Amino acid sequence: MLAALGGCDAAPPSEPAGGIGTRVFVVQREEGALAVYDLQSRTLLPERVEELGNMRHAVMAFSPDLEHAFVATRSGLLTRIDLQTLERDASIVTSDNSIDIAISQDGRFVATAEYHPGGISILDAESLERVAFFPGDFTAPDGAARTSRATGIVDAPGDRFVAVLIEAAEVLIIDASGDEPTIEHRFPAVARDPYDAMITPDGRYYVVGHMENDLLTLVDLEHPEQGARALRLVDEALAAQADVPIKLPHMASWAFARGRVYVPMVGLPALAVVNPETWEVEGTIELRGNPVYAVRSPVEREIWVSFSGEEDDAWVQIVDTATNTVVDEIEVGARIYHMDFTPRGSHVLVSANGANALYLVDARTRAILDEEPIQSPSGVFGAWRAFRLGL
Amino acid sequence: MLAALGGCDAAPPSEPAGGIGTRVFVVQREEGALAVYDLQSRTLLPERVEELGNMRHAVMAFSPDLEHAFVATRSGLLTRIDLQTLERDASIVTSDNSIDIAISQDGRFVATAEYHPGGISILDAESLERVAFFPGDFTAPDGAARTSRATGIVDAPGDRFVAVLIEAAEVLIIDASGDEPTIEHRFPAVARDPYDAMITPDGRYYVVGHMENDLLTLVDLEHPEQGARALRLVDEALAAQADVPIKLPHMASWAFARGRVYVPMVGLPALAVVNPETWEVEGTIELRGNPVYAVRSPVEREIWVSFSGEEDDAWVQIVDTATNTVVDEIEVGARIYHMDFTPRGSHVLVSANGANALYLVDARTRAILDEEPIQSPSGVFGAWRAFRLGL
Repeated sequence: MLAALGGCDAAPPSEPAGGIGTRVFVVQREEGALAVYDLQSRTLLPERVEELGNMRHAVMAFSPDLEHAFVATRSGLLTRIDLQTLERDASIVTSDNSIDIAISQDGRFVATAEYHPGGISILDAESLERVAFFPGDFTAPDGAARTSRATGIVDAPGDRFVAVLIEAAEVLIIDASGDEPTIEHRFPAVARDPYDAMITPDGRYYVVGHMENDLLTLVDLEHPEQGARALRLVDEALAAQADVPIKLPHMASWAFARGRVYVPMVGLPALAVVNPETWEVEGTIELRGNPVYAVRSPVEREIWVSFSGEEDDAWVQIVDTATNTVVDEIEVGARIYHMDFTPRGSHVLVSANGANALYLVDARTRAILDEEPIQSPSGVFGAWRAFRLGL
Repeated sequence: MLAALGGCDAAPPSEPAGGIGTRVFVVQREEGALAVYDLQSRTLLPERVEELGNMRHAVMAFSPDLEHAFVATRSGLLTRIDLQTLERDASIVTSDNSIDIAISQDGRFVATAEYHPGGISILDAESLERVAFFPGDFTAPDGAARTSRATGIVDAPGDRFVAVLIEAAEVLIIDASGDEPTIEHRFPAVARDPYDAMITPDGRYYVVGHMENDLLTLVDLEHPEQGARALRLVDEALAAQADVPIKLPHMASWAFARGRVYVPMVGLPALAVVNPETWEVEGTIELRGNPVYAVRSPVEREIWVSFSGEEDDAWVQIVDTATNTVVDEIEVGARIYHMDFTPRGSHVLVSANGANALYLVDARTRAILDEEPIQSPSGVFGAWRAFRLGL
């Protein structure tokens, strides 16, 4: 294409190397920036997207047409990035503090969960104008009118958004299929202080974690009229032992694979194996340390597990879902923050915050194929997320 | 980007409207061409890709970086298309007659199954040079050296390709993870004349159909050293009735959803419901006519079924996988050839050959949202296939 500009005096617009499909964004949490890695050429692109705001826990969404990426930040600044040129092409301040982002199935709306002022913002993805705001208003037990923080927003089947209000302890289901998004269902969670949530990969269940409480709120999105159901994941064998606390980490760390859910247990060196039809714990898999993330391979054959604690946090253990045993472990940098498989499962991207590096690992041989220096790397987001539900 | 060219006298290169992610290619089987539909704007683009060869049963593959699409044809002409400009940017004749195409997980190799001369071609995706050819040579029962046609090529976990040789009745597993693709396993199918094959969405099984035989060849790709296993899908209740033939159509028509496989039965107005752990038929779902394709929604909640026969082939029946019953039916044009869900499940694309049209259907309301005139439409291929295994 650039060749066609040969006879023109103006400088041709420079375009980043590589294709959109293998572009991977890496959150630089202390730098307010996104580094961009090209998976195909295995190079860090010179283009970096900067001045994005407070990137702690920053999450990205991608438009279905792969024209744009969106990033929401703890500063409340939402930025739209041109996926072709890697330039910021629009931004809006949606609040003082945003925590989460999702895009509707048809790509028309971007939704952000706001901490303050608390609620759900719905933006037109094209103009970035706010087309709706659902405040987290509720009546506290003492009768006072309060506003709750919101979190855990996901896209759900039927062009919906689902989110949870923290202080109000309520689940919101928003219908975004029409011209104006509306609240379709709003009902109580099963306990106080929900703090994180996720949708199962089949789009069926919305699962909410609660602070200092091992109850979970389970919503069957195919039957939202039934409201929330309380769920408790307890390993009977472990529970029979004295004083073993069963706690749950944040929900994005669960892995669904081959009909089971692999749940990292907080404060225990184990993954719980849960049957999502009964939501009962069928067993546990012992690990080298306390797990943080459990990430399934796209073909669901393996679960890659990262850890907390200095002795373990440079290691990944690999669980075989056919036998539910640890079959391998590898050391990757230091203090691993995030892992993601490439969409057909051939490689794993690992951001190692303690090593200030991004690693590319061969999923089959476990060999580290590439290492790129990136300051304070955190979340890793590939363009292929455009085509996945609930991200 | 075009704005930056404002001061330049040369005509800016014209680029097709819309983003790569929502580009959908529709095979025009009698025109040797691909029509291009933009899902986001719901418009047929003026750009059409032509002179591609004999497009009967033409199949496409997409590079992981979304720079290129590849189409193999019955004329043996393989064409690479620039996904951004929609122009043909390279081509090669791989044989007199190609039937199928796949791309390796890392995007380095494109493989085509050849009818004549029979075998598997492996091309460098960048240069389009043929880097390997595995001829379908075999020794016939009469002792003569013969060459078999190849078909059913797919990409498989671990950067492999799997294909089947028709006359030789053999399965080939090719390791494409190194610099030179090599045959890793080669073993007999369980019956004569395999004619089509598919890989299960979890990348575990390769299933081969045989002509005039209700036996299937089943290969566990996690244990290829075990060779092929014979499989027969028989509904015991139907088999108990007299003279009911159980035949199977081509394999791409099977739908895997929520732990079951929905298999269109040939010559019977029914879907068989198969348990893929035991490969036993657990029951059947009665339909309005003889099914052709069963297509699952991405969240696996519904199976959309198309039909053969003038009375039924304009209709789609929708099966709910929670109850295994038909819950809806809709009429879409005439003589439906292909259906595909958009990647997060909000819409269904339907090519209706008898109506010379492509339809966009709202998966939730079942309303037809758009109809575009396209001569002799057949297969529908969205760019999101770049990120799916086995396509």
